[in-house]
Amino acid sequence: MSKLNHFLSVKSTENPLELADLALSMKNNSGNFKDSRKGLSLCLIFFNSSLRTRLSTQKAAFNLGMDVAVFNVGEDGWQLEFDEGVVMNGNKAEHIKEAAPVIGSYFDIIGIRAFASLENKISDYQEQVLNAFVKYSGKPILNLESATTHPLQSLTDVVTILEHKKVARPKIVLSWAPHPRTLPQAVPNSFSEWVLACKFDLTIVQPKGYELSEEFTKGATISYSQEEAFEGADFIYAKNWSSYTDYGKILSSDPKWMIDREKMDRTANAFFMHCLPVRRNVIVSDEVIDSAKSIVLKQAENRQYAAQAALFKLSEME
Amino acid sequence: MSKLNHFLSVKSTENPLELADLALSMKNNSGNFKDSRKGLSLCLIFFNSSLRTRLSTQKAAFNLGMDVAVFNVGEDGWQLEFDEGVVMNGNKAEHIKEAAPVIGSYFDIIGIRAFASLENKISDYQEQVLNAFVKYSGKPILNLESATTHPLQSLTDVVTILEHKKVARPKIVLSWAPHPRTLPQAVPNSFSEWVLACKFDLTIVQPKGYELSEEFTKGATISYSQEEAFEGADFIYAKNWSSYTDYGKILSSDPKWMIDREKMDRTANAFFMHCLPVRRNVIVSDEVIDSAKSIVLKQAENRQYAAQAALFKLSEME
Amino acid sequence: MSKLNHFLSVKSTENPLELADLALSMKNNSGNFKDSRKGLSLCLIFFNSSLRTRLSTQKAAFNLGMDVAVFNVGEDGWQLEFDEGVVMNGNKAEHIKEAAPVIGSYFDIIGIRAFASLENKISDYQEQVLNAFVKYSGKPILNLESATTHPLQSLTDVVTILEHKKVARPKIVLSWAPHPRTLPQAVPNSFSEWVLACKFDLTIVQPKGYELSEEFTKGATISYSQEEAFEGADFIYAKNWSSYTDYGKILSSDPKWMIDREKMDRTANAFFMHCLPVRRNVIVSDEVIDSAKSIVLKQAENRQYAAQAALFKLSEME
Repeated sequence: MSKLNHFLSVKSTENPLELADLALSMKNNSGNFKDSRKGLSLCLIFFNSSLRTRLSTQKAAFNLGMDVAVFNVGEDGWQLEFDEGVVMNGNKAEHIKEAAPVIGSYFDIIGIRAFASLENKISDYQEQVLNAFVKYSGKPILNLESATTHPLQSLTDVVTILEHKKVARPKIVLSWAPHPRTLPQAVPNSFSEWVLACKFDLTIVQPKGYELSEEFTKGATISYSQEEAFEGADFIYAKNWSSYTDYGKILSSDPKWMIDREKMDRTANAFFMHCLPVRRNVIVSDEVIDSAKSIVLKQAENRQYAAQAALFKLSEME
Repeated sequence: MSKLNHFLSVKSTENPLELADLALSMKNNSGNFKDSRKGLSLCLIFFNSSLRTRLSTQKAAFNLGMDVAVFNVGEDGWQLEFDEGVVMNGNKAEHIKEAAPVIGSYFDIIGIRAFASLENKISDYQEQVLNAFVKYSGKPILNLESATTHPLQSLTDVVTILEHKKVARPKIVLSWAPHPRTLPQAVPNSFSEWVLACKFDLTIVQPKGYELSEEFTKGATISYSQEEAFEGADFIYAKNWSSYTDYGKILSSDPKWMIDREKMDRTANAFFMHCLPVRRNVIVSDEVIDSAKSIVLKQAENRQYAAQAALFKLSEME
Repeated sequence: MSKLNHFLSVKSTENPLELADLALSMKNNSGNFKDSRKGLSLCLIFFNSSLRTRLSTQKAAFNLGMDVAVFNVGEDGWQLEFDEGVVMNGNKAEHIKEAAPVIGSYFDIIGIRAFASLENKISDYQEQVLNAFVKYSGKPILNLESATTHPLQSLTDVVTILEHKKVARPKIVLSWAPHPRTLPQAVPNSFSEWVLACKFDLTIVQPKGYELSEEFTKGATISYSQEEAFEGADFIYAKNWSSYTDYGKILSSDPKWMIDREKMDRTANAFFMHCLPVRRNVIVSDEVIDSAKSIVLKQAENRQYAAQAALFKLSEME
């Protein structure tokens, strides 16, 4: 497996299953990689809040012996301008054309969390922030969840599926579920493209109007009925997202879409997955998430090995 | 001295004086323990502001060679839900039943600062937040000041008393003093139970209505007159707290309770102590805190050795 | 070159060029100093936002093997009182007379960022905050930009000038430029005193009323015409600042003072410098900052070596 130049989406990898295998080997024998990146440094830039990503990525860097600096844009610093040719007399104190190369001149790898605006579909789906760091920083970029993808989460999800699957090609169902707030499409987009790249059998089920961009879902079975979709499923992955077509809108908050015991009973004794944080008794009932088939904590635990594998391959000598 | 499973209160220790002796030995020859916990990691979770605890605990971990991640709940992440069975459609994005085990899956020790609400006496005195981390994280918990206790401060206080006491069993007076804001009872509760566990002679003096819970003060002499209480004292420990019985209320802001030179003159040339931060000329006069008998900075300095001893015993192999 | 006791301004150094040479030698062969300060610790205290200083100083400490703790006053902790004899019953929870020695008891070097209030000229120019840490902390203080100076930036600027100058004594022009917000005089004050201490030829050009304090500019040529000042210049250093005489006021926002191509054409093919963050098309046109003669990113890159040299000399054994 060759080195990673960036880790932006599944397209950054030659073979997602190989990267998942590396993460698994690190989990099962983490000592081998211990301190293997000593002397290298990582900067984590957060435009948005984070718990799992923030802590697991720091821990992954510690495991490899890397130094880590964490920067919260807006709290620690100031707002950045991304548009070209602007007369900067408003609220934004610095242009990305300066900020990115400056950070790149200090650190060996830069992690970026920058959620979708959910207001401007074009700039969100062009990955304006992430790509500006790729373009201007001069260093490998690690996506900590961008406007349209969350590859560290998806790599974790693949690792967790590999650990639990009992058939060669499991049936995986990505199910929309209700949520009180407007959420991005990054996690479901990313889960879909990774699962499909791994050649698993993917069904996506959602209410009408919640179809994701075909850029990410081509090859998946599209369904509008949880009853039908859950039949024979090996893994149920629950997630809310806002509409892609009616961009950033909440079209439904129908509680009937919550994942409960009755729905899980239609599956082939499926595992329950979610990326966390999860709204209990809104996305999923207590009964399901607290059941023996719930592997949400395994997914979260694997985040540190996913991050460790990505950091390792991003810092490999060519 | 056996290993600590958690460090929640004096009850977590078999012998508080032995732990204080360990902290003192680390202070006097810190090199012996240097880097002895290399490869281990600590996560510090702050639900509330912190200066001394934040910095001294990081420094203690550095001394032991540990890696440290710091997380400010609310700024870096989001609000957590602690109640069971809730339909989570409000402001809280994640349940402690997920957040705690996830953090526990990354780090070897978890430090928690979570002050009293001062609104709900029952959940405060049940230590809802601290105990949820104990219950769900699966890792040793280090109390960085909880709703009802602050054992790192109390251990420091015992260390500092051991360094300064001139008689085997000094007379120690814990005195209430006025303050413009509503403060928790954690520091005085904790000081009381540690001093009593060390078999020192403790008098607590406060205005009527400010009596602390007997759970922490049983064995202390209770007084309502600073004039009487200060007679013959070897140590005066000043602190404000809000009412326990009329829970979270300020019943007095009488400036006559401030510690001044005249009151200190009644003591047996007592040392002056306070946990800091302290409101000068509200809690204590400049003259007293700036005097040669003030050991508030010694207390603060000893925080790093108290934290170092606690981290060392929490990470000891069984 | 003898050790630095503090790094507060050019006056903290015996010879600013020697310190710049040390930074350059670290840049060109950073391995020699690698981990040379292992076991030492640095605390960075931010009263104000920071990107470059925050990240470059952390990186410099990592290079030297130091442990680093970062503290945002107000977010992580609480407001500090600096005045003497105050009855502290307002918003400030702790006096610098406690906070500074406590931090000093944990860490080997303390970095402080504390901007000018721009309201109280006397306390700003007395460097109330910075000097309180010098007075009370008991440890070497590293100025991360204070009310009146920014020596890490100026040291970087000298390093960058040394790397680029083509004549022994280059003509350097510090030019005021417009800005929508009220900015301190720290960067131009500091740049002026460093450049003059290095015996370079300095011209300062600004609108009437924007003259800096002579404490910093004595020896510089003072001009009010960019046309005249830019003639024959080797380096143009652009910066906005608010009025020193009419303290903290914006007297002009005249866009004619922006640095553009036409003005740069009057120079001797000068390099363009700015400390960043910079407002594009307000301070400087895109055309100039994006030109081959712009060395703003070199300045920023050199920040880590300037910080590394300062930390190295602050922690030298006597």
